[in-house]
Amino acid sequence: MSDLVDVIVVGAGAAGLTAARALVAAGREVVVLEARVRVGGRTLNLEVPGSDTYVEAGGMWVGPGQDRVLALVDELGFATFPTHVQGVNVGEFAGRMTRFSGRIPRLNPLVLADIGLTQLRLDRSARRIPLQAPWTAPHARELDGQTFDTWLRAHSHTAAGRAFFRLITQAVWCAEPEEMSALWAQFYIHSGGGVDSLINTAGGAQQDRVVGGTQRLSIAMAEELGERVVLDAAVTEIDWSDTEVRVRAGQRQWRARHAIVAVPPPLVQRIRFTPGLPAERAHLLQRMPMGWTIKVNVVYDEPFWRAQGLSGQANSDTRALGTVFDAGPPDGNPAVLVGFLEATHAQTASRLTPAQRRAVVLDDLAAYFGPRARNPVHYVEQDWAAEPFSLGCYGAFATPSTLTRFGPELRRPTGPVHWAGTETATRWAGYIDGAIESGHRAAAEILAATAP
Amino acid sequence: MSDLVDVIVVGAGAAGLTAARALVAAGREVVVLEARVRVGGRTLNLEVPGSDTYVEAGGMWVGPGQDRVLALVDELGFATFPTHVQGVNVGEFAGRMTRFSGRIPRLNPLVLADIGLTQLRLDRSARRIPLQAPWTAPHARELDGQTFDTWLRAHSHTAAGRAFFRLITQAVWCAEPEEMSALWAQFYIHSGGGVDSLINTAGGAQQDRVVGGTQRLSIAMAEELGERVVLDAAVTEIDWSDTEVRVRAGQRQWRARHAIVAVPPPLVQRIRFTPGLPAERAHLLQRMPMGWTIKVNVVYDEPFWRAQGLSGQANSDTRALGTVFDAGPPDGNPAVLVGFLEATHAQTASRLTPAQRRAVVLDDLAAYFGPRARNPVHYVEQDWAAEPFSLGCYGAFATPSTLTRFGPELRRPTGPVHWAGTETATRWAGYIDGAIESGHRAAAEILAATAP
Repeated sequence: MSDLVDVIVVGAGAAGLTAARALVAAGREVVVLEARVRVGGRTLNLEVPGSDTYVEAGGMWVGPGQDRVLALVDELGFATFPTHVQGVNVGEFAGRMTRFSGRIPRLNPLVLADIGLTQLRLDRSARRIPLQAPWTAPHARELDGQTFDTWLRAHSHTAAGRAFFRLITQAVWCAEPEEMSALWAQFYIHSGGGVDSLINTAGGAQQDRVVGGTQRLSIAMAEELGERVVLDAAVTEIDWSDTEVRVRAGQRQWRARHAIVAVPPPLVQRIRFTPGLPAERAHLLQRMPMGWTIKVNVVYDEPFWRAQGLSGQANSDTRALGTVFDAGPPDGNPAVLVGFLEATHAQTASRLTPAQRRAVVLDDLAAYFGPRARNPVHYVEQDWAAEPFSLGCYGAFATPSTLTRFGPELRRPTGPVHWAGTETATRWAGYIDGAIESGHRAAAEILAATAP
Repeated sequence: MSDLVDVIVVGAGAAGLTAARALVAAGREVVVLEARVRVGGRTLNLEVPGSDTYVEAGGMWVGPGQDRVLALVDELGFATFPTHVQGVNVGEFAGRMTRFSGRIPRLNPLVLADIGLTQLRLDRSARRIPLQAPWTAPHARELDGQTFDTWLRAHSHTAAGRAFFRLITQAVWCAEPEEMSALWAQFYIHSGGGVDSLINTAGGAQQDRVVGGTQRLSIAMAEELGERVVLDAAVTEIDWSDTEVRVRAGQRQWRARHAIVAVPPPLVQRIRFTPGLPAERAHLLQRMPMGWTIKVNVVYDEPFWRAQGLSGQANSDTRALGTVFDAGPPDGNPAVLVGFLEATHAQTASRLTPAQRRAVVLDDLAAYFGPRARNPVHYVEQDWAAEPFSLGCYGAFATPSTLTRFGPELRRPTGPVHWAGTETATRWAGYIDGAIESGHRAAAEILAATAP
């Protein structure tokens, strides 16, 4: 028979490991069960084959306002470095390839005015949404009853403006505006400090990198937790009563007073709960699908774009590789461009052979940065939707009407089972920072419930 | 080691049993694995405690145009009887309780004109959607990018008219117009022959009943299949290659050349596939949540409403029990009213105690039919969202953008695994008839693939 511990944590991403660490610090006995043979969830360092370097295949940036992840970076003794932004950006909008400084490309003044006004309205509407309970916003039901696309069509009056916000939607959520609730989109914007905060490098969510890669945060937390972390333990069943949980991974079983489930919503559905999850929670899970991105890291012998005065940042409202950044350190060694095939582009590209997909990516990079982009030293791609223990990336989003009907279930414990994961966060939902918030919150719930 | 059969069918509802029967008729060796200790899926006869009668807790009607289920009724030697419709209907719309003949209550002429015109537009738009491939409709992307609520707001111009279509949405899909794609709603309307066909008793989907209950269709098919049907075998894993499937239910294992999975989309996510499902199929499943209904059968000592000249049909755009029918046979013995708590009403009612919920239901029945409704002989309820092997009812629907992005995956086989279930049907999707279509289609796919 298995020993009884205080808490079993399911999932060794940033959320689960944060929760485990907080519980251990409070003197609790904890076991962390992780399906993969690694920790870090949607953060991942990939060794570049044939080199002594790595690229980041998952969540890779931190930025101002992300206080929890920045505190963790400090606490664990890591450092950050700024994303390379010096130079001119490349943008292809409304059929024209342009080079520009700052955030907004040179566009027709009417389009610029449309984009500016739409963003103003978006931020203003987003700020009215209470982060703890978006479903209580005065306009919640109206917003949640429509797709983000419907909202954008009502507020943006040029085709180029709408294309711009489609690109932003793809880049921020790896989803299309047609599939997401307008309330979720605006909650998320508020949660991340506004549109500029979400999309900017300097001053925004893409401002800084963690030296050694963000996965090291999880690796360091797991090292602290030591043998409490069990890898290769994909949880299949959770039996629960008011006072106990039994968690099974295949033939193995663990028992505890409480559990924290810290995996994305669609993966919770893989676990057989006995008794079954309450219908409202089950229906919430059915209405939070994952985004889809294929992330590509392309390594060159040198950062040739920097020598041309280019920042390495590129966007296009039509190309498959809609978003590109310089992913190298300040000294440019290694020289890395990171690109994202997002939402529909990821789906379309997933049907290609690896060679065809590589050709599409290099074609787009060459269009942005010139023919030298066709000759990388290494090419590393990661399709998060093909990962059975992620099913997509960056995170789950809510379909229309989900938050207003089922939002209160997001963080409501189910008996002794508590819920974590970045999708349950109130600030920086969808980011590493939100994952850490959720881990702290779930741990605090259990500590409060078991206070002597 | 388990024996190798030709086909394993997962799920012994009407879809799976139809497929199994067609395959056995063609000489194939078949095993049907059913999670429950009964067959019939979302059709279910419930014995009324303390009586010698039963009520139908699930799908209960058949109607004109449902050729496949009517053919099965004939083939198996069953009979049908007409739903009781004689008498006056009760409706509460825009705050007024009225009694009326026919389909449409007496309402303000402006509202009537609005409802009529909206229905005309709805049917006209629906007819343009190809049933085999709704995602190819000329206006598919526009429709799929919005919720059904957004579409209704653009086409119905009175609050009372929109309330009427909300009631219809709740009654037809057990969902709210805010959560469903307008393309899915209109595909479904076309699939079921138009709005009138979906909502009518005489001449529509509620016209007739099966003597003995619709579950008997599945029971009879299962009896024919005999020991091929294995109950209490909840499938947990499916390992597949191009040439073989291994299906596990806990410790037990079966092997076959092909499989047919005939369970609702959210339940497919409970099964661990190795290799994992292709990302496009996995994302389709993440975007098809179930509706939610609590179905209530209330048995009286006599059909007192008939004596008062009432048909037993009642609707309200505000009450929890929004839809009621007479569920008794022509002679009124037993005397049964069947009512539905649908969508948000089901969710709200699920939070009540059984006694509170019964009080709400009897209050509404008394408002429709007078105080005698408060004194039933038996009261039987079934919450389909609380059923771990259904997770909701009547069926799954598609959230916005799902059909256009992932619709082609609905019926695309995954290696040797074929997909059935009423949600994959082209005609009468969501109905028993659609389930039967899907079973025949899946069986035909395998027979075609294995033809000598």
